[in-house]
This record gives sequence, C-alpha cells and structure tokens, in this order.
Amino acid sequence: MLKLLGAVMVIPAVFPLLYGEDDLTAILASAAITIIFGFALERTTRPRGPVTELGRKEGFLVATLAWLACSIFGALPFIVYGALPNPADAFFESVSGFTTTGSSVFRDVETIPGGILFWRSFTQWLGGMGIILLGIAILPRLAVGGMQLMGHESTGPTTEKITPRIAETAKSLWIIYVALSAVLVLLLVLAGMPLFDSVLHTFATLSTGGFGIKNASVAAYNSALIDYILTLFMFIGGTSFVLLYWLTKGKPGKLWKSSEFRFYLIFNLVAILLVALEIRLTVYPSFLDALRYSSFQVVSISTTTGFVTANYDLWPAFSQFVLLLLMFVGACAGSTSGAIKNIRILVLLKKWHQEMRQLIYPRSVIPIRVDGKPVSAEVLSSIGTFCLVYIFVFVAGTLLVTAAEDLPLMTAVSASATALGNVGPGFGEVGPIGNFAGLTDFSKIVLSILMLLGRLELFTLLVLFTPAFWRR
Amino acid sequence: MLKLLGAVMVIPAVFPLLYGEDDLTAILASAAITIIFGFALERTTRPRGPVTELGRKEGFLVATLAWLACSIFGALPFIVYGALPNPADAFFESVSGFTTTGSSVFRDVETIPGGILFWRSFTQWLGGMGIILLGIAILPRLAVGGMQLMGHESTGPTTEKITPRIAETAKSLWIIYVALSAVLVLLLVLAGMPLFDSVLHTFATLSTGGFGIKNASVAAYNSALIDYILTLFMFIGGTSFVLLYWLTKGKPGKLWKSSEFRFYLIFNLVAILLVALEIRLTVYPSFLDALRYSSFQVVSISTTTGFVTANYDLWPAFSQFVLLLLMFVGACAGSTSGAIKNIRILVLLKKWHQEMRQLIYPRSVIPIRVDGKPVSAEVLSSIGTFCLVYIFVFVAGTLLVTAAEDLPLMTAVSASATALGNVGPGFGEVGPIGNFAGLTDFSKIVLSILMLLGRLELFTLLVLFTPAFWRR
Repeated sequence: MLKLLGAVMVIPAVFPLLYGEDDLTAILASAAITIIFGFALERTTRPRGPVTELGRKEGFLVATLAWLACSIFGALPFIVYGALPNPADAFFESVSGFTTTGSSVFRDVETIPGGILFWRSFTQWLGGMGIILLGIAILPRLAVGGMQLMGHESTGPTTEKITPRIAETAKSLWIIYVALSAVLVLLLVLAGMPLFDSVLHTFATLSTGGFGIKNASVAAYNSALIDYILTLFMFIGGTSFVLLYWLTKGKPGKLWKSSEFRFYLIFNLVAILLVALEIRLTVYPSFLDALRYSSFQVVSISTTTGFVTANYDLWPAFSQFVLLLLMFVGACAGSTSGAIKNIRILVLLKKWHQEMRQLIYPRSVIPIRVDGKPVSAEVLSSIGTFCLVYIFVFVAGTLLVTAAEDLPLMTAVSASATALGNVGPGFGEVGPIGNFAGLTDFSKIVLSILMLLGRLELFTLLVLFTPAFWRR
Repeated sequence: MLKLLGAVMVIPAVFPLLYGEDDLTAILASAAITIIFGFALERTTRPRGPVTELGRKEGFLVATLAWLACSIFGALPFIVYGALPNPADAFFESVSGFTTTGSSVFRDVETIPGGILFWRSFTQWLGGMGIILLGIAILPRLAVGGMQLMGHESTGPTTEKITPRIAETAKSLWIIYVALSAVLVLLLVLAGMPLFDSVLHTFATLSTGGFGIKNASVAAYNSALIDYILTLFMFIGGTSFVLLYWLTKGKPGKLWKSSEFRFYLIFNLVAILLVALEIRLTVYPSFLDALRYSSFQVVSISTTTGFVTANYDLWPAFSQFVLLLLMFVGACAGSTSGAIKNIRILVLLKKWHQEMRQLIYPRSVIPIRVDGKPVSAEVLSSIGTFCLVYIFVFVAGTLLVTAAEDLPLMTAVSASATALGNVGPGFGEVGPIGNFAGLTDFSKIVLSILMLLGRLELFTLLVLFTPAFWRR
C-alpha cells in the first residue's frame, strides 16, 4: 500500500512542472521516501510460511495501520517542502485529509503552491475511497459497532451479493465515486469555478472532507449556484454508496425504501428549515439568503464535510446548537461521512419505542425491524454501546484539550466533536473563520487520534488496546 | 396524599406566629385549599368496585401524579403570599423543591418571610423522602431504566429483604433520613450557623436539593468548617440509603463491597483533585483553599445538590467541563440524588469492555457482573436505552430553550442539563451567581418538565405519553 501511496504522490508533480512553482523536489522526494520505505518493509516483513487467510484480529490491525501509515507518509510533502515544518502540524493536516475531516492548521492556505495544495485535497479523495471499502466491505464482516446492519439485503448488496470478492465490490462502488467526481468537476467549471479549483473542491466534496483552498473556504466564490451544486453533491457524498449503486442499476426505488435514507433526507430538510427560519429573523433579512446559507451549512456539517459559506459563530444559539448536534449525528452508513450515522440513531429511536412498550407489557417480545428485517439483539447491543462509547471518547477528548490549554469551553467542546465526527470546523477559535493552527502540539495530536478513532468506527482502533487482542 | 401535604403545609405557620411576619394568612389559606381539594377529590373519585392491587400502569401514573400534584399545590404559598405572583414562577420553584433540584427564580431570596422560606426548603426534604421510596421500593418493581439492579441482594435489601411491605421498607429508611437530619442540624449549629438556617440547610443537604437561603448561597457563611460539614453530608445524601441502612445494622463492610459506592467515592476524589490542581494554578493561590472550594463544588454538583461557595463561572474550561459532566453523572441509585447515576455508568463501562472482547472472540459469551451477580440482558439493554434517552431529552430541552429565547449556548445547555439532572445551578445567566428569574415562562415550564422527567427516571413519565399505555 505504501508503494501505491508513493506512486499517486507523484501525480501532484504535474503542477510545479506546468506552473514552474518550487514544490517539485519536495513532492518527488516524499514520493521516493514512501516508495523506498514500502519496498524495504516488504522485504523485511515477508511472511516465512504460507499466507493463510486474514483473521479478525488482522482485519482490525490492517485497517488501523492503513490509515496510520497513509497519514504519516502523506505528511511528508508538507514537511519536506516546509509548508508545515512542525511534524505535529503536518501529521494533523495529513490525518485530517485521509480521514476526510478537513480541519486545517494552515493560517493562510492561499500561499501554498499548487502541487502541495493538490496533494492536500487529494488525500481526502483517496481517504474517501478507503472509507467506502472499509464501511461496506470490511467493518460489516468484523461486526464493528453494529455495522453488520449494512449486510442487510434490503439496505444493499453485501460483499456476497455484488460479487464474492472484496476487491470487486470496491471496484463497482469506486466507479460510481469516480463518475460522480467527473460530473461535479464539470458542473463546477460550468458554474464559473476555475478548473484547478473545481477539481480540488470535488476531492473535498464527494469524500465529505471539506478542505477549502481559499482562506474564506467556499464563501470566497460568492456564488449561489456553486453553493447549491456543492450542497447537492455533499448530500450525495453522505448517501450510502450501496444505494447509489442500486441507482445506477436502474433501481431508484431502493433509495426511498431505505429507512435510513428517508431519515437522512427528512432530518436534513427539517434542520435546514428551522435554521433558515431562525437566521432569517436575526441575520439574513431575505428568506432566500437564509435558505441558501442554512442549507449549505446544515448539509456541510451533517454530511461531515465542513465547507463554510457563512460565519455561523454569529448565528443565534438554537442554530449553533443544531450545527453542534449534526456534528454527532452524521449522514448514512456506507457513505464517506463520519460521526455516529443516521442508521444508528434510527435504530436507537426504535429501541426507545420498544423499551416503552416493554414497560407496559413486560412479557411481550417486540422485535425491532429496519426495512422490514428484524435486527438481532447483538446488533442492537453493539449500536447502543457504540453510541455511548462515542460520547465517552468525545468527553475524554474535550477533557484532554481543556487540560492542555486555556480555551473557551465551547471551542474545546466543538474541537473534540468536529475531530471525532470527521467534520472539520468547530466554533470560536477553531470555528468557521478560524483554524487549528493556534492549538498546542498536544491538542493537535489528541485531535488527530480522535479523527482516526472516528474514522475507524472507534472499536477498530480501540480493540488494539485491549490485552485480549495481543493474547495468542 | 393532598390531605397530608396540606397538613404539613401548616408547619411553616409557626414562624409568622413566632416572629410576627405577614405570611400567616397565605400559609394557612394554601394549606386549607390543598386539604379541601384533597377531600373533594377523594369524594368524587372514590372507586365504585372493590380496590384491586395496583398494576404496573397505575404505578407509573401514581408516581407521576404524586410529584405533579405536590408541585402544583406546593406552589400555592408562593402565589397566595405574592412572593411569586406569576404561576409559572411559583410552579417552577415548587417543582424545583419537590424534585430536590434547587434551581430558583427568586432574585432576592433574603426578603422572603420566614414561613414561606421554610416551606420552600421543606419541599426538598419532603421530596427527598418520596425519592427514597420511589427509587428503592417502587421503580425497581416497575423495571424502569434498569433500576431492577437495585433489587440485588448484595446491593442491599429488596422490599422483600427488609420487610414484605413497601410502607415498612420506606419507614426503616426514613428513620435513617430523619436521624441524619438531626445530626446535621446539630453539627451546623455547633459550627456557628443560626438554628433556623441550620434546619433549612439540612433540608437542602440530605435531600440533595440545594436551595440556598442567602443570595450568595453557602458562600454567605464564609466558614471552612460549615463547608466541610456540608460537603460530607451532601456526599452522604448521594449514597444509597440501602447501604446506609446496612451501616446502621452494623455491617459497614457492605459499603466497600458495593462497586457503585467505590466508583462514587473514587470518581469524586479524582474529580476533586483534578479540579483543585487546576483552580490552584489559576484562581486560588493556596492549595488548601483550592481543595476546599473544589471539594465543595464537585460534591455539590455530583450529588446533584447545587449549593454554591465559589463562582465557578470564572474557573478555567477543564474545571467547568468537569462540573458540567458531573451534572450528567450524578451519585448513587437509591440515594436522593438525580441524573444518570453511577451504577448505570459503571454497568456501561463493563458493557464496553465486554463488547471489545466480543469483537476478538465473537462466539464467546461473557456475562457482565455487578458485585458478583450477573446482570441480565434486559437490564443491560434498559440501562443503555435509559442513558441514550437521557441524552435525547437533554438535547430536546436545550433546543426548546434556545428556540424560545436568545441565550448564550452555554447558558441554555447548562440550564437543560442542570434541570434534567436535578442539580440546581448551571453556568452563565443561570450560573452560580445567577438565577432562573430572567427566563421566559416557556423556558421555565420546559425546565420544570425536565426536572420532573429527571426525577421520575424519564420512563415513568414518558410512558404515559405512549398510545399503548392508554389502551385497555
């Protein structure tokens, strides 16, 4: 994988060659280091006996190491070029890209040369491909956090259903990812965005990453058309790629039959409307403006993209709280989005309803169904535990950040929530017009770990820290 | 019950008689209205057939109606006297008392005459008696939110274990409650607090209510001795009365054998130490001062009492976040404290650990034990759902408050958390030096409902709003 990473790292070298910028050496050197390290690792760790199939433990280890290795080597161009000489900064930016978070430590992103800027955005797009593979083909098999639900025939194809092999599954979904990216680039160019900017925004949109390439993020283009195009494609990025697959197979009915998609759609519409109503009263006199900024910001946060068109730090408390909540809820499982995800919230709401009935009829057995299929007790229990551990980890992250430095509580809370949810911006100092540059290295590393934890659905990484994992 | 409430409402009439204040008529009139209403209700609703045993549904209804009726009629003295002419204010204050929350809408509590002030504090003490009965004798039988755990022999006596009848169980625990109250009054008087103040602070301490009778709350006495005495008795108020019962039976070993009590003790000690270390660096130059204010404030919030000796709004973010978290955690089940409670957090941590092992050994069956006894899957599931619904309700409360008025987000978040957890003060406007008087009536009613929801362990009240409850 490192060899492959090194190979794609060469791609941004096109830009210094085209525009004569000074980042060519840094890019090629980083690629070379990565490739050489990949070869060295392969030679030194070649298994002695015959390779047996990957077990569960190896699955957790491989997924974690894949994201960690990409994040470490992906940081090289930033360090070697000198854009982020501090390794903690470079690692943060790289983790933020590969986990498709989109939090940045660049104070002035407009001074970065094209090649480095391209690499920064490209990491999100690569991360997005990894997430699709992880969320649809790997985690359901490892039964992480109730992701088995994704194996439901009605929710979409399991690995068995599309094709017997993981690689094939991934390929059919990646084709959709690439095709949607091409469409978005085209639309953005037609809407008046320069080609380079369009490609980089596309990387950040379908991966729900959200790295801006202007200091004012998407607000810099000041175009309602661009805002709405991005809103639509962020929403698509937050949709399960299994559902998108069925769409391409001419089965659009699957979309509406998916209770998670319905929940996702309605939840977003309600949030957009409520926020629009409030900010119309207080910030934007025109309802159309209110709707434009509300829909962009709500979809941006709920899909965990993190683009910014408005300084929502100035919005009133209700709208701020809605955005903060969306950082926890996220979008659909099987999409590139992060956080808890709609299917888990939906199952918990059903569990709540069941629990209330059980109080009245203690001896009744009321199965919980999603899309008509009963959900097993193990999956229910996993989902409940996942959500509570999610909150524990968020709390621990906030405690560590506030212990390390004197930030306003809201800044620290939102930094922890936005990192764990792979969203991008928070509130206050790390908010829509801020960035993460001013934090201590300790906080940056804590937040980097939160990004990895969120991306790996917590348990994939946490399980490595249990003694039982390392026992033979 | 209303007749009884009316009867005890006469007690505060002693003070206007003694001191010649002008609240005699208001108190007697309120008591008369309550008693007459009680008689009228009894005559009009006398069951026609023979009374069969109370069923599950009746259990939920009776518990909810008991708190609601006490809160409504308990508000009469405030309205009739004119101390709180607005019914929303009076209801808020009365709910706050009977749920042992301790949030106040009095801007200047020092101008209230003695009788009314006594009644206000007394409502907490009465509420505390109700909570002991509810939490130990009733909710475990109704299987609300995993409270069945309280029925564990090792955690303490079930209703069967102490005595076959609920009333008898209650009596043996109430004796302890009354005895501890007498001891605390004595200690406070010895520490130099006036008798009247001592009695009223005792009402607020063992019930973990927290109504102050000075505008500066306990800080007004400025005595380290009083602070430490109250800290100790708040901690006792947060201990399960079942454990206190065993203490009086000469079995102190039960205390340390209880994993919830150990968790409670260690959790508080760690929080006190961490907060003391931080506020020492930033607010209090002397470590002894830091420890005094940290221990008082941590125990006050974690036991959901809510007394104030320091303006923790000025403490740094880490300490503030710890206090905010404690509003959710609460103290022991079977105590007079509110919020989620330690036993549930403890079980969830065990569940998390089990879930991680299950990921590595998917086919293994690992039972979760508390105090050596296995916890059933139903109880585990109830506890998980309870905690998630707790968070849902907290979120809904914050949304409603922020929708109703323009408050800083932290004020609204803490108002919702402190009401639901039956704590008392929040942060900012509703913080240690603030009160709830400035909120809209809508917010006051929302927060009153949150107090009732928290006190009734959510499901007891929520279940009444399901259609299934009202089906025959």
